[in-house]
Amino acid sequence: MEIPLLPFFQPKGVVIIGASTSPEKLGYGVVRNLIQSGYTGAIHLVAQKSGEVFGKQIHTSLQNIPDPVELAILIVPTQATPQTIEDCGKRGIKAAIIVSAGFREVGKEGAELEKKCVEVAQNYGVRLLGPNCIGAIDTHLPLDTTFLQPPMPEQGGIGFISHSGAFAAAIIDWARGQGFGFSRIVSLGNQADVNETDMLPMLASDDNTKVIVMYMESISNGRRFVQVAREVSKHKPIIALKVGRFEAGQKAAASHTGALAASDTAFDAAFAKAGVLRAETAEQMFDWARALENCPLPKGNRIGILTNAGGPGVIAADSLEHHGLVLAQLAGATLDALSAILPPAANTHNPVDMLASASPSHYAECLNILLQDEGVDGVMVILPPPPMFKAEEVARAVNEVIGKFEKPVVIALMGSTLVENASNEFQVARVPTYPFPERAASALAALSKRQKQLTKEHIENTKSQNKTSDASAVNPNDLMQDYNIPTAPIKLATNEAEAVAIANELGYPVVMKIASPDISHKSDVGGVMLNIQDDTALQSGYAQMMAKVSAAMPNAKIEGVQIQRQIAGGQEVIIGMVRDSQFGALMMFGSGGVEVEGLKDVAFCLGPLNQAEAEEMMRQTWVGKKLKGFRSIKPVDEEAVKDVLIKLSQLAAEHEEIEEVEINPLRVLVKGAVAVDVRIKFKGE
Amino acid sequence: MEIPLLPFFQPKGVVIIGASTSPEKLGYGVVRNLIQSGYTGAIHLVAQKSGEVFGKQIHTSLQNIPDPVELAILIVPTQATPQTIEDCGKRGIKAAIIVSAGFREVGKEGAELEKKCVEVAQNYGVRLLGPNCIGAIDTHLPLDTTFLQPPMPEQGGIGFISHSGAFAAAIIDWARGQGFGFSRIVSLGNQADVNETDMLPMLASDDNTKVIVMYMESISNGRRFVQVAREVSKHKPIIALKVGRFEAGQKAAASHTGALAASDTAFDAAFAKAGVLRAETAEQMFDWARALENCPLPKGNRIGILTNAGGPGVIAADSLEHHGLVLAQLAGATLDALSAILPPAANTHNPVDMLASASPSHYAECLNILLQDEGVDGVMVILPPPPMFKAEEVARAVNEVIGKFEKPVVIALMGSTLVENASNEFQVARVPTYPFPERAASALAALSKRQKQLTKEHIENTKSQNKTSDASAVNPNDLMQDYNIPTAPIKLATNEAEAVAIANELGYPVVMKIASPDISHKSDVGGVMLNIQDDTALQSGYAQMMAKVSAAMPNAKIEGVQIQRQIAGGQEVIIGMVRDSQFGALMMFGSGGVEVEGLKDVAFCLGPLNQAEAEEMMRQTWVGKKLKGFRSIKPVDEEAVKDVLIKLSQLAAEHEEIEEVEINPLRVLVKGAVAVDVRIKFKGE
Repeated sequence: MEIPLLPFFQPKGVVIIGASTSPEKLGYGVVRNLIQSGYTGAIHLVAQKSGEVFGKQIHTSLQNIPDPVELAILIVPTQATPQTIEDCGKRGIKAAIIVSAGFREVGKEGAELEKKCVEVAQNYGVRLLGPNCIGAIDTHLPLDTTFLQPPMPEQGGIGFISHSGAFAAAIIDWARGQGFGFSRIVSLGNQADVNETDMLPMLASDDNTKVIVMYMESISNGRRFVQVAREVSKHKPIIALKVGRFEAGQKAAASHTGALAASDTAFDAAFAKAGVLRAETAEQMFDWARALENCPLPKGNRIGILTNAGGPGVIAADSLEHHGLVLAQLAGATLDALSAILPPAANTHNPVDMLASASPSHYAECLNILLQDEGVDGVMVILPPPPMFKAEEVARAVNEVIGKFEKPVVIALMGSTLVENASNEFQVARVPTYPFPERAASALAALSKRQKQLTKEHIENTKSQNKTSDASAVNPNDLMQDYNIPTAPIKLATNEAEAVAIANELGYPVVMKIASPDISHKSDVGGVMLNIQDDTALQSGYAQMMAKVSAAMPNAKIEGVQIQRQIAGGQEVIIGMVRDSQFGALMMFGSGGVEVEGLKDVAFCLGPLNQAEAEEMMRQTWVGKKLKGFRSIKPVDEEAVKDVLIKLSQLAAEHEEIEEVEINPLRVLVKGAVAVDVRIKFKGE
Repeated sequence: MEIPLLPFFQPKGVVIIGASTSPEKLGYGVVRNLIQSGYTGAIHLVAQKSGEVFGKQIHTSLQNIPDPVELAILIVPTQATPQTIEDCGKRGIKAAIIVSAGFREVGKEGAELEKKCVEVAQNYGVRLLGPNCIGAIDTHLPLDTTFLQPPMPEQGGIGFISHSGAFAAAIIDWARGQGFGFSRIVSLGNQADVNETDMLPMLASDDNTKVIVMYMESISNGRRFVQVAREVSKHKPIIALKVGRFEAGQKAAASHTGALAASDTAFDAAFAKAGVLRAETAEQMFDWARALENCPLPKGNRIGILTNAGGPGVIAADSLEHHGLVLAQLAGATLDALSAILPPAANTHNPVDMLASASPSHYAECLNILLQDEGVDGVMVILPPPPMFKAEEVARAVNEVIGKFEKPVVIALMGSTLVENASNEFQVARVPTYPFPERAASALAALSKRQKQLTKEHIENTKSQNKTSDASAVNPNDLMQDYNIPTAPIKLATNEAEAVAIANELGYPVVMKIASPDISHKSDVGGVMLNIQDDTALQSGYAQMMAKVSAAMPNAKIEGVQIQRQIAGGQEVIIGMVRDSQFGALMMFGSGGVEVEGLKDVAFCLGPLNQAEAEEMMRQTWVGKKLKGFRSIKPVDEEAVKDVLIKLSQLAAEHEEIEEVEINPLRVLVKGAVAVDVRIKFKGE
């Protein structure tokens, strides 16, 4: 899969079709950028009208162009695009960037034209980027196929995949002001052919790319994305900004699980599974990327703070803890060493406050001492304009120390004009700076998360036991039994006498539930009665339930009642699955009962689950912790819950025809767990 | 209170004591800044050594200086400070800024010297700012008493109170780069005398100050702060960044309320009561301040988005919803008007995407159309570098439109070098810009929050009924009865026979609880038994409980058991109060039971509560909503809950000797509510 896409970034020869001599035309901008980028391969120009631009001849036919030529950039009228792709195919060109807009995004006609482009391209084995995109950039080769206003983005180690050309363009300009650069940038446009997942390996295999950032408006194929990203993220960090969170309305759901699993929950779960760090904002994505590009990863989450002022030190401490990091406890030797060089009024405990008088050598020496402490996994250096010294002198001194250690150091460089030279010093040394301690803390936290991802033990997915079971089985309990999920015996009674007989067979106390295909939330309509102790209670209960239910839902088809042995004691949890259209089975675990939607004490994970993932879901919820016992609440069988979670995820994997499953409650006993109520929704129901 | 502090900002004559001719000395920097600031009053210099600096004579005695002189800036050795203050007092100077450090912050000796300074100052009626501060700035007067590196901060409408001089200094420099300015800035230092609350009215009464920002590391007097800030915030917005959130360890608490009320919760509640907007980060504080300074407030929360690119529009829509704003539904006439001027492929629905070809006049006309729509309360304009036009041309066109409407417009100005001129245009027009849509959305949300604050109905606090009650009453139920909070009858039995007699008197079913001053969490040790139906059950239960409790806590003093009529049905909530050392009674409401600490479904509010506040607390929690009924859970008497909340807050206000009270559970019935278990912790217990 990798080789066919390489010509987008490393083509042997490029032809620009639709080159123009008019500076206001895109076909001029593309020629200008490609030439000015310093691309060393052959550059050919083609247009309907011959001429000359930037000292290069414009040919009128693709056939007149000498080999090698691997990449075509098309800035031709929309209608002419399919023919031009065909010409490229015939000429042996295997990669084409379609810059022009006017395809799917403008309506039905455009969509058909786009489809035609793809058909032609597939006939000739041509890969397409776009249409409606700004192309690709490789700052290291170098290569710039875009028409964006010069200069090219700075060189750097961040690979950037963007669903939006305008966003990419704005970021390129913004990054210039922030002092960071890129390795490869690709704008995907309409993704008629090549999509975000295709491009991941192209950035992963590029030695200059240290970290990959993705601006995503959608996903082409959820499961394939997870698979590819999971592989890539083992080697290179991926950060994603997924927008459109609030766009997708929630579907009407048949279960609590469905109601709680908003479409964005699936993205959270998918990114977690794929090892993708999800950023909340654009600024955060690049804050993280700069740290991941330039810093070694910390061994743990214990951070030292070095400052020349108390206030910013407190802000830093707050934000470190907010982001799940901890203030390092400094060793005695560290405290002594700091005391030896700092004035008596300084604070040698973390946050280390050297006071306003701190000199460049104070900064350097103290940083050296902190980084030597084995209890310090990384350091935030806070540098507001020092009253007595130049900030750039501090920067130079600090940079020398940073290079000597394999620990991350980030700088909160506070100010503007007074720290401008310092900012340049840090930039050259590739030490990431942030205008405030809060953002520096967030970056350190991203490093720590990345480290955790890499060290997390991935216990292999529990092997599927390849159970065969009747896919059309409509009795949920049978399906549970196929997967060894214990259920409470339950039987259908079609009249009162049958109900009494079944209750006596199962043994009191029993639970009675209305049996109707039309009633989803049974307790809402008086269709559930608990703790029935004897025949008399059952008989009067039966009559009551029928009256209530037919009053509440006069048109519901009533098949009778389900009688179930009541399982007493223990704790209750909910376990559910909804099948996401993009990512497949999304598992849920949490506090159950009728209050599940109100309490929202639930966790999600993309199936199939392994042991570690099931444990993590339990750890994330209060009810999961409560299983271990809390105050007067007795501990129950956590292992049994984990077991059911994993088994239900297997069931989901092997029964694609099931849209939603929900066990609510799963009653967890001192030994074992019983699925008391199970609901299944099949596809198309 | 205001008049004595005015000389810090508007002195008639200033003397700098400790002026220096050496550029590396603070006493030189202060002279330089005061002169360069353009301060038009008399400037006098005093030092031990006579001389001349900046063309001004240095006197050797305060006595030689002509009237008027209202403010002294002291840069004298620590030891000499009390005497110098005395000299000032004798000379009739009523305000002194103590720049020097070396006081309380360095230890016991310094603290004593600081105390002496205050004593001397009080003797002579001198108000002190500092010590260990950088002084005060008024950019409009103008006046600059600091030694910070020039230039002075830009003029603007933001008043800034800072507990940290270094933070203030860094912000002044950063603001310069961001293009915004200040009205008044004050650094408080050690706050030996003047504190953050004192300074609030000084900024509130200043016509040039449109919004007040506070960087707070602590609070001098919580209740006074709330009182003063609540008054100020009725007229001017206050934004606070309170740091040190994670510092204060939680005290061991006697109740769930105490355990859940982290010290930072009290700040949240205090800011809410005081009408102070609490910012999460420094950047956010100033993002909000710039919008509040320059924009009219929106009438509602319906926002229009105007963009020339889809991607940033989606980011904007996401973040608006994230911040509690909504995408405005555009009127038919608006859609028609937009269609008339935009190309067919443009999206006229909100977010309005004009496409990359959008010209300056497209921006202006579309913005005009959006602002005319009565369903649009404010607009975010997104401006990445326009491919075909200069961003500054767009800025000029847009600014003309903004001035014509009384609706807020903020700009997401994306990029750096390509939008620099546009940035200047917006700055001059006082239109706030943000580098990303997320931050622009947060600013719009701050405007909306401010609007809500101003329109919120403040129902007067329920009048206290001035109940007199025995402060030493140890029976919690008696105290509840004093405030008409219904309790379940409960009686102490010291042996089994008494227990049976009481149970028969109250009527079965009953609850039995161990009575021991040493046992706080009774259910943890088997000290609670519910649903006792008859004498036999009570007798066997009594024996069991005694055995369990003495096994679990062999040294606890057992007084017997409490027998209580069991109240069945309804719903359970918790209502509690902890007395915060800084802000007083902090009320809690939420999901009760033993799981309250795990579920954390609780809300806090500073007492005393009015109707609106009690309702808001209930609205913030799931259990509060559940009182209205949910699925099979029946609605219960919300009003009774609100009533207990307000009454308990009255009790707290009138019983300062009570540290914590907790009703858990309050059983809420279809009609009325009963405090089933009440715990009280008195001061010193």
